[in-house]
Amino acid sequence: MKSPSAHASSAPAPDATLLAEVEARLERFVEEADYAPNLRDAVAYALLGGGKRLRPLLAMRCAEAVGGRRTDAIEVACAVEMVHAFSLVHDDLPALDNDAMRRGRPTLHVARGEAMAILAGDALLALAVHAACSAPRDPARMVRELTDATTLMISGQVYDTLGGCPESMPPAARLRTIHERKTGALIRGACRMGAMSGGAREGALEAIDGWGTAIGLMFQAVDDLLDETQSAEHVGKATGKDRDLGKLTYPGVYGIDRTREEVESLRADAQRAILPLGEAARPLSDLTEYMASRTR
Amino acid sequence: MKSPSAHASSAPAPDATLLAEVEARLERFVEEADYAPNLRDAVAYALLGGGKRLRPLLAMRCAEAVGGRRTDAIEVACAVEMVHAFSLVHDDLPALDNDAMRRGRPTLHVARGEAMAILAGDALLALAVHAACSAPRDPARMVRELTDATTLMISGQVYDTLGGCPESMPPAARLRTIHERKTGALIRGACRMGAMSGGAREGALEAIDGWGTAIGLMFQAVDDLLDETQSAEHVGKATGKDRDLGKLTYPGVYGIDRTREEVESLRADAQRAILPLGEAARPLSDLTEYMASRTR
Repeated sequence: MKSPSAHASSAPAPDATLLAEVEARLERFVEEADYAPNLRDAVAYALLGGGKRLRPLLAMRCAEAVGGRRTDAIEVACAVEMVHAFSLVHDDLPALDNDAMRRGRPTLHVARGEAMAILAGDALLALAVHAACSAPRDPARMVRELTDATTLMISGQVYDTLGGCPESMPPAARLRTIHERKTGALIRGACRMGAMSGGAREGALEAIDGWGTAIGLMFQAVDDLLDETQSAEHVGKATGKDRDLGKLTYPGVYGIDRTREEVESLRADAQRAILPLGEAARPLSDLTEYMASRTR
Repeated sequence: MKSPSAHASSAPAPDATLLAEVEARLERFVEEADYAPNLRDAVAYALLGGGKRLRPLLAMRCAEAVGGRRTDAIEVACAVEMVHAFSLVHDDLPALDNDAMRRGRPTLHVARGEAMAILAGDALLALAVHAACSAPRDPARMVRELTDATTLMISGQVYDTLGGCPESMPPAARLRTIHERKTGALIRGACRMGAMSGGAREGALEAIDGWGTAIGLMFQAVDDLLDETQSAEHVGKATGKDRDLGKLTYPGVYGIDRTREEVESLRADAQRAILPLGEAARPLSDLTEYMASRTR
């Protein structure tokens, strides 16, 4: 790891620059894949149709925070975003969450049919692995991180949608089991893969891991709060639905006030975790604040 | 590549031995995965419920045919079988082929519900990548081969189920486009990954590639013939269905007699391709004969 002072001198590129780079690389991965034309169209619809690109941002900022360049992490950033996109496509299907709207427009199965949505989701997962495997540094390690996170994510969706936790498990433990996997694992994975791409030593990787774990849980707690308190129009997808479906949410288990306290506590955990990285972790600190206070 | 004579002296292990090794390794991969218990049950149902295990056999025999040990290829053999199992689970779904029976028992979505079938299929694809990534020799290269083959397979299923070939493409070319991808790519990939695992040099890999391409197409032609000529009870899944659905099949395009000629021609191509490997390729030659004449 380079010393933090090496970074304090040059300001990091603004988020918009990173996101434009990610967008271009995502487009190129889709263009270069050996797809039937209608499959390419469906994959592009699901992957290139907007989205916050939070996970790619995390990956690239983590690469920088450990002394690497953001471009070191562009392939893994794309890979994580593709896994995210695949999971949205499959989770939206009628047999799962049955969501008709996503990012303010029809979900893939509504727009292109259910068969295409299933196959395009599969293709996105395969493309994600391909992207991780294109990483310049230790691609096999990146692929292992990616599949570990993906497996946990799928397990989390199973727990959330189909059950599987022991009957005796209290709701708070159940909530954590679900969210550490369903949302947390991929966010943490994005951070870890970004840091590894940036050449993180053991101590730096540990700091990033702690940060990624905290912001992953915080992200879901904030999401649950928005689902309770914001309009569907503002958020861009149906709100209040998780509660209506009887799914476990932070506000459902803890109430709104204690969920806000939980967000505060996770925000503090996150900020504490990156202290060892010094000034180089300033963008991660800013991201923590943004993620704690976002309104959509 | 070792000289063929090094192999002629010791007879290769019988198929049953290889298949028992594959079965045990598949079970261990499923046991070790970080799954919700109901997800593990569903993945086990789909993966460990019988099946010919043709692709693992191909991978391990190809490793031996280029001078390696069959155990060199066990991880990639499992990986390819997992991709095959994932594709069956998703292809059987109501939105795709809507098949209720597979290997003589209810398909996964009939047995465990559609949501679980979608998620277990996803988990199987992730597990396949994990398995390929556990290969002792050049895991990143194995993962690349696996995802390339998987992507082609999904594209083939799109062409077959949802169209996408240009209107102007003649039926014979369309048939080849579909089958090279849908069935051929993964069979060829199994052979290539097996050979790579066994340490194949360029020339040997080329021979295996030619063989894998020919037997991949032959496998589908034979499958189409069985679908036309055998009872569902004998084959273990619905027959005559592809034709009823208006899908392109070899007998549908060429008629039964010319399809039999095509099988003969592909069998000859396959046998010719492995001539450079000499006596070490005897088991591949036997497999060619078996695959050309199988009745289920």
